[in-house]
Amino acid sequence: MPSDTVSLADYERHFARMADAGVRAYVDGAAADGFTQRNNRAAFDNLYLLPRVLTDLTGATAATTLFGMALDYPILIAPTAYHKLVHPEGEVATAVAAALARTVMTVSTQASVSLEDIAAAAHAPLWFQLYAQPRWDDTLTLVRRAEAAGYKALLLTVDAPLSGIRNMEQRAGFRLPEGIRAVNLPDAPASVRPVHPGSPVFQGMLNDAPCWSTLERLCGATSLPVLVKGILMPEDAELAIGAGCAGIVVSNHGGRVLDTVPPAMAVLPLVAARVAGRVPVLVDGGIRRGTDIVMAIALGAAAVLIGRPVLHALAVGGVEGVAHMLTVLQTELEAAMALTGRARLKDIDPTILMARNGGCAYAPR
Amino acid sequence: MPSDTVSLADYERHFARMADAGVRAYVDGAAADGFTQRNNRAAFDNLYLLPRVLTDLTGATAATTLFGMALDYPILIAPTAYHKLVHPEGEVATAVAAALARTVMTVSTQASVSLEDIAAAAHAPLWFQLYAQPRWDDTLTLVRRAEAAGYKALLLTVDAPLSGIRNMEQRAGFRLPEGIRAVNLPDAPASVRPVHPGSPVFQGMLNDAPCWSTLERLCGATSLPVLVKGILMPEDAELAIGAGCAGIVVSNHGGRVLDTVPPAMAVLPLVAARVAGRVPVLVDGGIRRGTDIVMAIALGAAAVLIGRPVLHALAVGGVEGVAHMLTVLQTELEAAMALTGRARLKDIDPTILMARNGGCAYAPR
Amino acid sequence: MPSDTVSLADYERHFARMADAGVRAYVDGAAADGFTQRNNRAAFDNLYLLPRVLTDLTGATAATTLFGMALDYPILIAPTAYHKLVHPEGEVATAVAAALARTVMTVSTQASVSLEDIAAAAHAPLWFQLYAQPRWDDTLTLVRRAEAAGYKALLLTVDAPLSGIRNMEQRAGFRLPEGIRAVNLPDAPASVRPVHPGSPVFQGMLNDAPCWSTLERLCGATSLPVLVKGILMPEDAELAIGAGCAGIVVSNHGGRVLDTVPPAMAVLPLVAARVAGRVPVLVDGGIRRGTDIVMAIALGAAAVLIGRPVLHALAVGGVEGVAHMLTVLQTELEAAMALTGRARLKDIDPTILMARNGGCAYAPR
Amino acid sequence: MPSDTVSLADYERHFARMADAGVRAYVDGAAADGFTQRNNRAAFDNLYLLPRVLTDLTGATAATTLFGMALDYPILIAPTAYHKLVHPEGEVATAVAAALARTVMTVSTQASVSLEDIAAAAHAPLWFQLYAQPRWDDTLTLVRRAEAAGYKALLLTVDAPLSGIRNMEQRAGFRLPEGIRAVNLPDAPASVRPVHPGSPVFQGMLNDAPCWSTLERLCGATSLPVLVKGILMPEDAELAIGAGCAGIVVSNHGGRVLDTVPPAMAVLPLVAARVAGRVPVLVDGGIRRGTDIVMAIALGAAAVLIGRPVLHALAVGGVEGVAHMLTVLQTELEAAMALTGRARLKDIDPTILMARNGGCAYAPR
Repeated sequence: MPSDTVSLADYERHFARMADAGVRAYVDGAAADGFTQRNNRAAFDNLYLLPRVLTDLTGATAATTLFGMALDYPILIAPTAYHKLVHPEGEVATAVAAALARTVMTVSTQASVSLEDIAAAAHAPLWFQLYAQPRWDDTLTLVRRAEAAGYKALLLTVDAPLSGIRNMEQRAGFRLPEGIRAVNLPDAPASVRPVHPGSPVFQGMLNDAPCWSTLERLCGATSLPVLVKGILMPEDAELAIGAGCAGIVVSNHGGRVLDTVPPAMAVLPLVAARVAGRVPVLVDGGIRRGTDIVMAIALGAAAVLIGRPVLHALAVGGVEGVAHMLTVLQTELEAAMALTGRARLKDIDPTILMARNGGCAYAPR
Repeated sequence: MPSDTVSLADYERHFARMADAGVRAYVDGAAADGFTQRNNRAAFDNLYLLPRVLTDLTGATAATTLFGMALDYPILIAPTAYHKLVHPEGEVATAVAAALARTVMTVSTQASVSLEDIAAAAHAPLWFQLYAQPRWDDTLTLVRRAEAAGYKALLLTVDAPLSGIRNMEQRAGFRLPEGIRAVNLPDAPASVRPVHPGSPVFQGMLNDAPCWSTLERLCGATSLPVLVKGILMPEDAELAIGAGCAGIVVSNHGGRVLDTVPPAMAVLPLVAARVAGRVPVLVDGGIRRGTDIVMAIALGAAAVLIGRPVLHALAVGGVEGVAHMLTVLQTELEAAMALTGRARLKDIDPTILMARNGGCAYAPR
Repeated sequence: MPSDTVSLADYERHFARMADAGVRAYVDGAAADGFTQRNNRAAFDNLYLLPRVLTDLTGATAATTLFGMALDYPILIAPTAYHKLVHPEGEVATAVAAALARTVMTVSTQASVSLEDIAAAAHAPLWFQLYAQPRWDDTLTLVRRAEAAGYKALLLTVDAPLSGIRNMEQRAGFRLPEGIRAVNLPDAPASVRPVHPGSPVFQGMLNDAPCWSTLERLCGATSLPVLVKGILMPEDAELAIGAGCAGIVVSNHGGRVLDTVPPAMAVLPLVAARVAGRVPVLVDGGIRRGTDIVMAIALGAAAVLIGRPVLHALAVGGVEGVAHMLTVLQTELEAAMALTGRARLKDIDPTILMARNGGCAYAPR
Repeated sequence: MPSDTVSLADYERHFARMADAGVRAYVDGAAADGFTQRNNRAAFDNLYLLPRVLTDLTGATAATTLFGMALDYPILIAPTAYHKLVHPEGEVATAVAAALARTVMTVSTQASVSLEDIAAAAHAPLWFQLYAQPRWDDTLTLVRRAEAAGYKALLLTVDAPLSGIRNMEQRAGFRLPEGIRAVNLPDAPASVRPVHPGSPVFQGMLNDAPCWSTLERLCGATSLPVLVKGILMPEDAELAIGAGCAGIVVSNHGGRVLDTVPPAMAVLPLVAARVAGRVPVLVDGGIRRGTDIVMAIALGAAAVLIGRPVLHALAVGGVEGVAHMLTVLQTELEAAMALTGRARLKDIDPTILMARNGGCAYAPR
């Protein structure tokens, strides 16, 4: 690991330099023009943290509890596909790192290692991210396998009924290398979808897309907590709670599915206000600093998930890189708490925020 | 066609690389400093699309109807001059591509092929764009020729009574090459306009400019629907309806005539509010993505027109390029509808929009 | 003159390439960091022009009258020093060009040619810009000479009681070349100002600075109209009218004196509202396009003055360059009037404006 | 000293060119991404100064009084560590320069020369900046030494209970060179802090951090005026006054401790409004121009402190450089007063300000 790797931006920089162009386009690319991806970061530039000084910090801690699991700090590994693209051991390496850093890894449906092998290697809790499969039985099989392997929660991703328009990947001509594939899924049927000339998207392609009833059915089919990932609107959060979900992840899929949707930070306070504490609200998208996490918590998040930086660190530093990257974030978070005079996560509320444009100090936008 | 041509921006990039400098200045240039041209694009950056998830998309479609014509999707080819500048077959190639992509081409008064030859080659509906000629009889001749050749609608362009101050073209020293000219018009009289030293513009040059009475006369002279192209103000939309027009195209002529006028997107909601559904409102200017089209529809547009990208694609890929470019846009539009949970164009209303500056979420500016 | 010189920006570009570094720093430089100079331009980017179409333009004209002088168009030459820096004949060449372009030149107190020689060469009206001299008699001598030479108005510059902090000039080590000096002024006394160590500015340096009484005395001492140049605040406009001035020039001296003051466009509507037509309000600062002039008039200006572009054009094209540059501006102004549907200057009012930020359409900021 | 050194930006530029990379990272670097550091500068770009003209400037002066000390101008030297990094004589050279420029130097606890040696060399008033030490007795020893050496005031820094996340320094691998250290402090104990794996920050590291009671105790232990440095919130200003402080320094430590906190200028008016004249409010952070100082005073500051530019000037020009840099600032301040028509500091109030965004002219944000 280069000695100047001291922040998440450094991992990204080193990854950009060393990665294969196609892999880089896949990992760092986004939908269309990358507008939402850039805004995920830029959203944090609209806010200032307001520090209190000379506060008593005795017994300060960033610890929290999620679905009965004690966490030293509220930072989880987001689900991302195909870790073997950047490390020969793939998700197994990531899971080992998660345990070293004492946090939760969320394993993707599109993992490049079997979910059972990942669970066997891990010595810390895992969650499982689920894409609803065209056939309910296939979905249920994945659920039962995750339960059997000891996964502690399920995340149903709802914002990607079809793939994003990933121009960066397309321009780079990215294809999955030989030997890397979504091993937890049955082989995809040969692409013989007959497309009606009148529509490239709407003829058949979406007939099997999941609906609210899919979520309801899933919640009824498992005793694991089911989180819904990919909610941006308060109305959808309401529907998700009504369908029985145990938590919500405000997310735009890292800007990888539909470009021009808002950054998670812009809608998080609206969703959190609607949820009003009935279930935990998590968030991902552009979080790269401890101060970002303080802002997310102030806007209503119970915890955050980290996506691309995990792949950057896995590529640059392997197991050690991922564990170090997580510890950097934890350190930054705790330093930000100390320097703003907040001894506990619950002390982080909207009074810590000031809008940079002067519009509405002390309040979420 | 280069294999990395996967979006309209790619066509533009390849065109910029391969085109003759003068032709590029003509096609991609704009009036004065290009401020309005840039804002045509930038206007979209002020908006976010708000997606709904897990929606039922059964029977989803982007189809619509305009003046009795059924369209698979609401994207038309805008009128642009001299297609022979970028392709040896000129407008004939474009018309063939429009038919392949199952949409309408609008043929310019300044086409480099006779309007009859274009109509003969086309196997899909055509519209005809009209510049009012100094003499009414010349205007009427064009109308009668378009009617006879089977054109289905007329667009009267009203925002260019004089040419724009096209500094980019002037700096590049652009002149029409030998053999390319506005073949549908009589030869321009030799430029012997005696300019009074007191005014370079106002002495005689505008005496024959069209007025509201010209529009009224035109509407009375044909049974084709007459659209007025180049309206930016609600008051002018009202006057145009009063004069009998069948539709309005909100447009600043791609920023090519008067720099510093607002982008079409900024005034579209004001015009649409005033028109209030009495006639369809179309729009052009800077539309390069399916998400742009969703935004335009949310702000009141019934359909959009595409200008420069048609020339880019015609130069880069010929007939196939134009058809592919249109299909890319259609695909992006349909994907955006699916990913925002809108099964039909009529489901796209202002609640899909959020102002990026946080000013007025859920409402047009 | 290079053939691609088709706008004021082209003159600036060619001047930047050909000018001596010191002369360029003097002409194009500004106070401190050039913040105000940049904002003079940027202020125009906050506004859009709203065009009306199909308007009757019969008899359209940009002509106006100022202090009894008929002008074909409302664009004057602003006072700038030392034209010999860029042309061997200095202000004489500029005056000839002004007459060719049928407009008024304002001659600076710091002209590098005697005011009588300029007047002798000119065959069009001249105005004289005045700096109040430490001794009233010296000021009066200048006034009498201007009157005798046939100047038609006086501009008293009030925003420069001391020189600006012109870091760009200082870094370039600019000094007036041998043979170029302010020939209309007596030789400056040797710089033996004893500076008190406690203050580099306030000890003596400002004891002779002009006050409101200076203006009153000047207005009483001449029958020529006296304009006050360098007003940015409505309160000062009121005082200037009270002191007897015949007109006001809203100006920040091209950003050359105090950096961080607002652009003229930002305060023009406030000043114009206070003046309320009692005297004409002129404006300079960053005007480079005909559309800028339309905006200035919409915000309350009766006419505009052009500074640096005159020196650019004089350097690049001599007499012909200055005349061409002025005609370019006039052409752009008239084209903008035609394309916004305004047949006369008086038709240009705030309804032609839209704030780009959406804040307050149809009204000055 | 290079002859083009005519502003603080020039000193910064020359320093950047000549300094060792590590020293540059230490001096010019900031916490994390440097967001707050950049905003310290950018905050000034939100404001314009509104000049009044033809004002009577007889007897004008920038002089003021602080804690009974007469100052020719309200610009002090902020505390910064380790001046020997940029000059062999370290803080002694700076103190000599301060006296030449007739202003106050604030000596850092982390000075690289003993506070007694600095005092012996200085022939002008000194203030002493204090970090509360883990043991009160060590703090008290520093206070008594400063009193004995004749320091006139104490600044307790409260915004840095732990070091900032200084990534720029870390990437550059900066270490204090042999022979440069905080000589006024006892040797730091060997770093044997046992870190609990559950938290990199919160285990023990903050147990000795100062609290409000520390400030109260300090105020009671000395007859020198105690200023509190590092306040950004009005509530903390209130608490500081309650604890007995004699003055407040609004500061974010030059952006070196916690990134994303607001620029001092953004919160200064809020703090000043709360303090309401009970004690003087000083400010530092990004001040590089005389016009910045006018703005700070208009927003409620009694005086300003200058940090990094002192090190730039000390490196580039030694004693003479620092004295010149201070005189440049004084000259710019006085010129700004003269050109805005303010004869005394007390004439600088919020009516001199205009918000650049047009939001609230004539009032602090």
